[in-house]
Amino acid sequence: MIDSPNSAVGIDDIAAAFPKLFISTTGEFARARGIEPAKLARGIGVEKMAVPDAHEDAATLAAASTLELMEKNDLRPAEVGKIYIGTESGVDEAKAIGTYVIGMLERVYGPGTFSECSTVEFKAACIGATHALESVACWLKAGDDGGGEDADGPGRRRGRVGIVVATDVARYELGSPGEYTQGAGSVALLIKRNPRILALDPVMGVYTRDENDFFRPVGMRCAVVNGKYSNQCYLAAMDGAFSSFQRRALSRGMIRIGEGGCLSDHLRQIIFHIPYPRMAEYAAASFFRREWRPLPRWQEVEEEIGAEPAAEEVGGEEGAKESADYQRRFSKSAKFLEAYERKVKPSTLISSAVGNIYTGSIYLGLASLLAQDLLTPGARIGLGSYGSGCSAAFFSGVVGEGVRSLARDRILKRLEDRVEIGLKDYQLLHDGTRQESVIPPAGEFALLRIGGDGYRHYDLVG
Amino acid sequence: MIDSPNSAVGIDDIAAAFPKLFISTTGEFARARGIEPAKLARGIGVEKMAVPDAHEDAATLAAASTLELMEKNDLRPAEVGKIYIGTESGVDEAKAIGTYVIGMLERVYGPGTFSECSTVEFKAACIGATHALESVACWLKAGDDGGGEDADGPGRRRGRVGIVVATDVARYELGSPGEYTQGAGSVALLIKRNPRILALDPVMGVYTRDENDFFRPVGMRCAVVNGKYSNQCYLAAMDGAFSSFQRRALSRGMIRIGEGGCLSDHLRQIIFHIPYPRMAEYAAASFFRREWRPLPRWQEVEEEIGAEPAAEEVGGEEGAKESADYQRRFSKSAKFLEAYERKVKPSTLISSAVGNIYTGSIYLGLASLLAQDLLTPGARIGLGSYGSGCSAAFFSGVVGEGVRSLARDRILKRLEDRVEIGLKDYQLLHDGTRQESVIPPAGEFALLRIGGDGYRHYDLVG
Repeated sequence: MIDSPNSAVGIDDIAAAFPKLFISTTGEFARARGIEPAKLARGIGVEKMAVPDAHEDAATLAAASTLELMEKNDLRPAEVGKIYIGTESGVDEAKAIGTYVIGMLERVYGPGTFSECSTVEFKAACIGATHALESVACWLKAGDDGGGEDADGPGRRRGRVGIVVATDVARYELGSPGEYTQGAGSVALLIKRNPRILALDPVMGVYTRDENDFFRPVGMRCAVVNGKYSNQCYLAAMDGAFSSFQRRALSRGMIRIGEGGCLSDHLRQIIFHIPYPRMAEYAAASFFRREWRPLPRWQEVEEEIGAEPAAEEVGGEEGAKESADYQRRFSKSAKFLEAYERKVKPSTLISSAVGNIYTGSIYLGLASLLAQDLLTPGARIGLGSYGSGCSAAFFSGVVGEGVRSLARDRILKRLEDRVEIGLKDYQLLHDGTRQESVIPPAGEFALLRIGGDGYRHYDLVG
Repeated sequence: MIDSPNSAVGIDDIAAAFPKLFISTTGEFARARGIEPAKLARGIGVEKMAVPDAHEDAATLAAASTLELMEKNDLRPAEVGKIYIGTESGVDEAKAIGTYVIGMLERVYGPGTFSECSTVEFKAACIGATHALESVACWLKAGDDGGGEDADGPGRRRGRVGIVVATDVARYELGSPGEYTQGAGSVALLIKRNPRILALDPVMGVYTRDENDFFRPVGMRCAVVNGKYSNQCYLAAMDGAFSSFQRRALSRGMIRIGEGGCLSDHLRQIIFHIPYPRMAEYAAASFFRREWRPLPRWQEVEEEIGAEPAAEEVGGEEGAKESADYQRRFSKSAKFLEAYERKVKPSTLISSAVGNIYTGSIYLGLASLLAQDLLTPGARIGLGSYGSGCSAAFFSGVVGEGVRSLARDRILKRLEDRVEIGLKDYQLLHDGTRQESVIPPAGEFALLRIGGDGYRHYDLVG
């Protein structure tokens, strides 16, 4: 029963789709690139990178995750008011990827079944799906979803639901430093009232500035990345978004911080954007260092690793180096590691087996927590989303009671069933020169061919 | 004063930016293409097509319209919570066009001034900006805009505002049938509570289906268009969206239709998507024919142009031909022409001097009504947005009292001040082979150069 249009809205369920193929970063791949496998595993944190087969792209992955979400929730197409898709792997410059996705879904549900569902493609590097999530949540909160139409008995009304899909293929030049962080996959989120997984708080902190840390000029298959600079932009933007979030959350009285406490004390888990697991660790170190520095508990840190250099006073290159050195020490401190292992690391589980899925990666983080039974009803968690170019958003939600009813093993099981490919097939698929699928599509959505006019022909292959 | 987060939200002001250059469709251009100028003027309805200069693209146009909107409303950057941009002329596959736009705006307002403004790029062919408008409106209605923070005196709260920008460059192959419908421009909409121009009704009818009527494969500069089929998709989708709108509006009790009446009787004006003015006329004919057919007033039509053939009964090709013939007769009937001239045609004024600006064209329609003083406070107007690929949305709003306070002559004046170019310059600019601007940028945002890595360097040129 819905009392008001402003009742809790958020993420009710999650489904994900990944390519069936993967390449290990630690074997033949590492040797071919002349990299110590252990360095890759530790330095990046990705052990297996998902590789799309010849018939897979961002549209087929999106359709697959959406179909799974609908099937496991017995959703009828008419109940779905929006399928909003975040991606930076669009397959056309004008046609929304969601129209292709709806075309594929209608192969299952029948022609015209999604005619009253609207779709649009959200592009903002890795933060696109977070904006889509905010849009769909606001649509439900505003009560514009047409929920008043189908009276479902006196005093009740059934609203429609929205689906947010994150779908991406992360592709960098062969041999480039970004290559070790590739991946592909799609996450579909069911957004509704009284959600089981996460009721979103009405506060989002944001930070935006114009940067060239990572981009992909029109028509290029691979991204242009200044990796080190992009990490700096990520940390600065996340810091800005968190400050914005904190100010708003405190101003609204949503969270009250006691003497000696800090906001993250009120967040059971924090999911940072995960281009690769190690980056989430960097983000966590930057985050906790800044939060704890003014607090009594900072003494514990300084007792273990020494006093923090007054970087701002030293200034210049030397100050920056001292600060970075201290950051490294901080990231090995017992105090930090305890907080990281407990609050942040569990969210990186699936990413370490899939690689970067760009805008969906923080939602894979949520799926990782679900899979490990770490979402405790009533607990508040924080999410920090980052998109190059650049912008960040920090938001939070409270885990729903209904989370207990959700099945947990689906995603991990599927990842175990994948097939490993060798370097040669990987490189052919990467370049787009392998036309035949490694595993011919069966019982799934597939890109069948690209017409002479460039139109993409998809179908459900039996 | 804001009583509740659900109070009226909508379009408070409009600003537009166009290239300074145009080419007449009726002179040298028509001769070179071997077309009767009068046929172009009547058949398409575009007399002048805006042509972007070498330093202009969708990002510079978006920044220009946004800056004008901010300046004429004395907006401070901190008041702007969102700049959501609809476009199918994105300048990067990953980086959101809005980050470039914010970079340009910060040349005026100072570095970091937009740091708490979020931006995302909405891609859905010509309907992208309409989805952006819905998103920003729902964000305000949901009360998630952080408006509670800066108390502005007892009992008052000042919310932030959102800006929706539509920006596009419509480009077709030289010599193709689409070439006569090109254009370029940007419209920026100020979205806030208690808006002066249009308070949006809480109902939107939508229609979506997977089509290949118009698309632009990744990396192609020009769209692939099946013009005739796209027109059919437009009409079918608009019909679907209007049915959806009507059902919801009646169910909510938003509009009540009396005996012998129809919904459009309650719409003072109707703005259809305007790829070219004649298409809006086709849309209107299809729309009124379907609405009036079951009503007593249909007798008047039949008295003038004869009884409508029972197309569905005749069936097949013959039925379709008969129906199309009757449509042509209907579109010349006094009853239709009176309704079209009064309710629809005025919205096409600016488009006839600019050409197709894709997703902004229905908002140029709104600007056209404003410029002609046809927005009457208290009157409800309807808007039908269409995006190829394909989807349509039909929605409505009520003109605000504040509309009287808005200046009306800015856009028309600016269009008069443009410079006509010849066929040769037009073709060089179209191909992207002319590197030097025809009119060097002065006092405006400009694309200065594209770096070797493909990054686009913009600046405010003094």
